[in-house]
Amino acid sequence: MGKLLIVGTVAFDAIETPFGKTDKILGGAATYIGLSAAHFNVDAAIVSVVGEDFPQEYLDIISSKNIDISGIEIVKGGKTFFWSGLYHNDLNSRDTLDTQLNVLADFTPVVPEKFKDSEVIMLGNLHPNIQISVLDQLTSKPKLVVLDTMNFWMDCALEELKQVLKRVDVITINDEEARQLSGEYSLVKAAEIIQAMGPRYVVIKKGEHGALLFNDAQVFFAPALPLKEVFDPTGAGDTFAGGFSGYMAQQGTVSFHNMKNAIIHGSNLASFCVEKFGTQRMENLDKHEVQSRLQQFKMITQFDIELAE
Amino acid sequence: MGKLLIVGTVAFDAIETPFGKTDKILGGAATYIGLSAAHFNVDAAIVSVVGEDFPQEYLDIISSKNIDISGIEIVKGGKTFFWSGLYHNDLNSRDTLDTQLNVLADFTPVVPEKFKDSEVIMLGNLHPNIQISVLDQLTSKPKLVVLDTMNFWMDCALEELKQVLKRVDVITINDEEARQLSGEYSLVKAAEIIQAMGPRYVVIKKGEHGALLFNDAQVFFAPALPLKEVFDPTGAGDTFAGGFSGYMAQQGTVSFHNMKNAIIHGSNLASFCVEKFGTQRMENLDKHEVQSRLQQFKMITQFDIELAE
Repeated sequence: MGKLLIVGTVAFDAIETPFGKTDKILGGAATYIGLSAAHFNVDAAIVSVVGEDFPQEYLDIISSKNIDISGIEIVKGGKTFFWSGLYHNDLNSRDTLDTQLNVLADFTPVVPEKFKDSEVIMLGNLHPNIQISVLDQLTSKPKLVVLDTMNFWMDCALEELKQVLKRVDVITINDEEARQLSGEYSLVKAAEIIQAMGPRYVVIKKGEHGALLFNDAQVFFAPALPLKEVFDPTGAGDTFAGGFSGYMAQQGTVSFHNMKNAIIHGSNLASFCVEKFGTQRMENLDKHEVQSRLQQFKMITQFDIELAE
Repeated sequence: MGKLLIVGTVAFDAIETPFGKTDKILGGAATYIGLSAAHFNVDAAIVSVVGEDFPQEYLDIISSKNIDISGIEIVKGGKTFFWSGLYHNDLNSRDTLDTQLNVLADFTPVVPEKFKDSEVIMLGNLHPNIQISVLDQLTSKPKLVVLDTMNFWMDCALEELKQVLKRVDVITINDEEARQLSGEYSLVKAAEIIQAMGPRYVVIKKGEHGALLFNDAQVFFAPALPLKEVFDPTGAGDTFAGGFSGYMAQQGTVSFHNMKNAIIHGSNLASFCVEKFGTQRMENLDKHEVQSRLQQFKMITQFDIELAE
């Protein structure tokens, strides 16, 4: 059973979509990553920070999925990171209404002793210096380091981001961010430039338009499952990253073949995440549903054309 | 060898992209459809209209691909349909600079006797009444009627469009048009509603984001090949339709399996079309290039995940 170390936010979200509105609910990148990675045979731990206001029941939700939460620091008297967002009618764009860093402002991650030799490291979207600090604490070289990031860090911590990129194997990034980071509109060219920055594997997330995987001259594409209803896109990218890194930790071998399957598993799990508000759908998702939708993924993408010699 | 009847414009285009600009060059939906369908073992004919200003060499380009052009009427003293467009930097949007209907304004299609029993009818984007008029001239029921249309006809000839839709098997339409025609944002819901209007098969073209095929509860998705350079998107949708209808005419049997392969062949051929201005790339495209890129399509989409029982 491979060890998977997840670093990222555990937070409160308040979400408004055309279909409804939530008060403060369980959110955060590491939460979504963990709930998704828990679908694989892995020994996972989250490194994060919350305030004293964070409900025990939320921590219980995470640990009930057999995720080690000893690396989630609880700051006495502190307040938990809070994000609030409003999605537009097409659900493809959103406005951030409020961001309160709170305890995240002074977060110094401490990797639990047991997970310092993890095979797979999933660095959720955080300041690049926090991501570097986690890598510095490892006692053995991981098989795979996966990094997620966003345009915010390209705007205000680009040099630090470039430093951490030199130390990762996989970057997951959305299409606009790939264009910003590379300065190229063509995603093929963007992926080439980003590979030269460090990560051998570049995963470009295109939301409802699927995800691309680049590795040297090899390319793989997975669609997003066409859904009748998308209720709340929050956490879809992190759920994708959780499925991706969870599968890779379970398999234990880094290959393009495994990476392709990891992309499919990530896309598959993300397709559930968006069906309900926040983490609701991921909290209650059983193996049969996951397998049955994987079958759908096969159906919609696999074909059989005989090629001439 | 299946008979394929293509109806659509044969025209002059003037195109400006961020990479350059053309004077009046060979264009038109039926031209692109024909050049693409010619890659299959079919007996194809184009029904269209041009003016006396239309160069013989352009007609020769079409007939050199073994496409019957006896149904292309040449109007004495008439001027050929002309379209001029300017693509924006991302190549995903364009402005129409000029549209001169000319001989198209009074076009009455006449289907050549030999093609009145065609197995596959490809109705390119034209006024729905012209599309209906072609169907009315057929002497035997075709195996498959494919219709392409656009938002313009939804705006100004919706009732006529609904009439012709009742008589077609497949509609190819882009994502925005599918949303407009159905009134639904979700493409899954949109496809359901459009199927209820007539076409059993709904193909939604998403440009650089690929194409979706819906038939009852079945869904298939083909990506667009990720390209380093896109030079000129003009004709990509028609090239897709040409590959789709050409393959179906060659196979002769309507099934979801064949339809899936038709989508792949259409996407494959469209990936070449955008590499040069206008029809240039399609005029000079050999079998080996087509086969080799089909292999790439397999590589980027096919995966092998064992499903649990």
